[in-house]
Amino acid sequence: MEANVTAGKEIVVLGAGFGGLTFCQKFASAGAHVTLIDRQNHHLFQPLLYQVATAGLSPAEIAQPVRSILSDKENVTVLLDEVLGFDLAKKEVALSHKTMRYDYLVIALGGVTSYFGHPEWEKFAPGLKSIDDALRIRREILLAFEHAELETDPERVKQLLTIVVVGGGPTGVELAGAFAELARHVLRSDFRHIDPSKARVVLVEAGPRILGHLPEDLSASAQRQLEDLGVEVRTSTRVTDIHAEGIQLGVEYIAAANKIWAAGVGASPLTAKLGVPLDRAGRIQVQPDLSVPGHAEVFAVGDVATIIDANGRVVPGVSPAAMQMAGHVAREIENELGGGEGIRARSPFVYWDKGTMATIGRSAAVAMIGPVKFSGFMAWLSWLFVHLIFLIGFKNKFTVIVQWAYSYFAYKRGARLITGLR
Amino acid sequence: MEANVTAGKEIVVLGAGFGGLTFCQKFASAGAHVTLIDRQNHHLFQPLLYQVATAGLSPAEIAQPVRSILSDKENVTVLLDEVLGFDLAKKEVALSHKTMRYDYLVIALGGVTSYFGHPEWEKFAPGLKSIDDALRIRREILLAFEHAELETDPERVKQLLTIVVVGGGPTGVELAGAFAELARHVLRSDFRHIDPSKARVVLVEAGPRILGHLPEDLSASAQRQLEDLGVEVRTSTRVTDIHAEGIQLGVEYIAAANKIWAAGVGASPLTAKLGVPLDRAGRIQVQPDLSVPGHAEVFAVGDVATIIDANGRVVPGVSPAAMQMAGHVAREIENELGGGEGIRARSPFVYWDKGTMATIGRSAAVAMIGPVKFSGFMAWLSWLFVHLIFLIGFKNKFTVIVQWAYSYFAYKRGARLITGLR
Repeated sequence: MEANVTAGKEIVVLGAGFGGLTFCQKFASAGAHVTLIDRQNHHLFQPLLYQVATAGLSPAEIAQPVRSILSDKENVTVLLDEVLGFDLAKKEVALSHKTMRYDYLVIALGGVTSYFGHPEWEKFAPGLKSIDDALRIRREILLAFEHAELETDPERVKQLLTIVVVGGGPTGVELAGAFAELARHVLRSDFRHIDPSKARVVLVEAGPRILGHLPEDLSASAQRQLEDLGVEVRTSTRVTDIHAEGIQLGVEYIAAANKIWAAGVGASPLTAKLGVPLDRAGRIQVQPDLSVPGHAEVFAVGDVATIIDANGRVVPGVSPAAMQMAGHVAREIENELGGGEGIRARSPFVYWDKGTMATIGRSAAVAMIGPVKFSGFMAWLSWLFVHLIFLIGFKNKFTVIVQWAYSYFAYKRGARLITGLR
Repeated sequence: MEANVTAGKEIVVLGAGFGGLTFCQKFASAGAHVTLIDRQNHHLFQPLLYQVATAGLSPAEIAQPVRSILSDKENVTVLLDEVLGFDLAKKEVALSHKTMRYDYLVIALGGVTSYFGHPEWEKFAPGLKSIDDALRIRREILLAFEHAELETDPERVKQLLTIVVVGGGPTGVELAGAFAELARHVLRSDFRHIDPSKARVVLVEAGPRILGHLPEDLSASAQRQLEDLGVEVRTSTRVTDIHAEGIQLGVEYIAAANKIWAAGVGASPLTAKLGVPLDRAGRIQVQPDLSVPGHAEVFAVGDVATIIDANGRVVPGVSPAAMQMAGHVAREIENELGGGEGIRARSPFVYWDKGTMATIGRSAAVAMIGPVKFSGFMAWLSWLFVHLIFLIGFKNKFTVIVQWAYSYFAYKRGARLITGLR
């Protein structure tokens, strides 16, 4: 009986980000069983994480329990556990609670903040990859304003009200814009001794322009829009040191209590335990079918993989790419588990670029969809629309609309809580 | 010029709970300046804190930045700082950043969880007073279900799925009901190895009945409604020991990974630094006008004060009482600052009981408004209505309605996040 070919096959998926979750949602081969493993219980809508860091949204509005998303997928088991290592020869993954055997392994462990050889900077300039990161940033920025209100030394007040964002990619641009709005509009009338609108927000980028992945005119437009919000943009500027009191940019020193690192993403350090070829950022150099070299039953998708697709394009480290890669792997495995003469050879992955966008602030954004470029309000509207469509869960969509409408019209931010103080 | 009498007068308010905040909102004496001090930046809507602990609401939905609430009160300064001690003779309060001199002092520091001489139980049975407490409870309960899913020993699974709530007051009743709903309805189809609806929720009360402040028939009704949800109610049962693995109730031992302490509230330990008479729970035994004995310019309101009002009633430790006390103090100080012949003698505080209620679950509650008693759906509707009216901030009201409607119809809870794992 050919149906038996799939029976009892075990597929282990590591990571419940966009890649891992999409695989579980798309994979539909009767009989095979899927185990999804993540050390967090929630799927995080990463593109809006900067809104949590800047007190615009609450964690629960951009995150959803993985179990809840997959509760109607009878063949999927979700485990909250941590990956310790791999034995690719034995087809086993070691978790902290047990060892899992697999027939297929899908590695979707995502990325981590990379400090380019300066891990000691993490202490002074948090990255933004998890909810806990975002809550840490929110707490530190809001506390800096509180401490400035209590401070009498004007130099120290200036230092407390200076925020430096390192990295001019989408995350850095979004953070810098949101901090400027927070200071200039939201907090403006809340303090008695300090004037929050005097806060200084600096965006530092090592390359010649911000949003380097977009055409030059959109980069220029984004910079103009940021400057209109009061952000100082420093391109071709390298960070040479970061410590508690400030940041060194070559010969220039900025006294700043608040530094955020949005400059580098590396693959999960677990990729080093695979014993397969990696690039400088620790990403697996996958085959055209997204399998790991030498292990046809092991796939890697999303930020842990690097590949030039069948059209010769470098696949970017964005969520649509991770989702498309996961869909491709699901189809390849379904095909092989289908059994019999229906099995075709594996096909190469092709990335379909649906467009790219970055938001800067209230009514300010840049977007490119195919050959069409937008700036300002129209780009901001499409950004809003696209992010709402992809936000998982109806209730989240609805409360996020309410939050955004409220922030937009009242210039208030509802999530200005300092938690975890001790 | 009589107007000058108030000029430059400094009123220091300690604590931004219901008492301190209400004082700042009601006090309206031109010229006098008010400084509100709290170590948290947010006012917390305590009556709904149990909803955060049970994953129904997000922290930002029941908390609001104090600065934001008071931003249009020009004569109020908000400081994020911690009270270290008092010098009542010198009329000074020592904060960690500076020392404040006052003409009037309003102590509204609220309560803390009291373990009745067993502080070592705190480690195993968290109380519920702050957002961080609620997030800790949410994390521990959700993790227990996750660990049960990974566990193979059936005894250990039972232990992980047992929740004991200590204290049959409103908070304990609300927590027990919400945990039972979480296990029986919300999480029901999310797991593959365990059956969350088999989770055991036990509510332990030392007195002869739960909700002892309500008439007997309402206590009985509340107990029936809890039992309908599957909660085991143990009255006349004393806790004799709590440790990591379980809880000892006299001769009975319950193996339980999850214990919550909702049994005791004491005044803020800072009252001990005042050098004035306190009751056993550390509350200040205030005068009829709510001033501290021997210090007519120092008032205490809310959970730090204990008083039998002019009608001979013990004023209960609930938020309406704290708000009424704060309003009384505001009027007394306004009167004295008014100056000249208009000054009347101080008047005694009279508590106006607007009713009392406790919710148990979806469509389940008990309420008493004046002589009228409600049970079940009608009580639940009035509970909903009253809590929404008093929830500070329009946006919060609106998103809370959305959350509740969603939870009610979909039997899902949106805030099931495990954060702060390491």
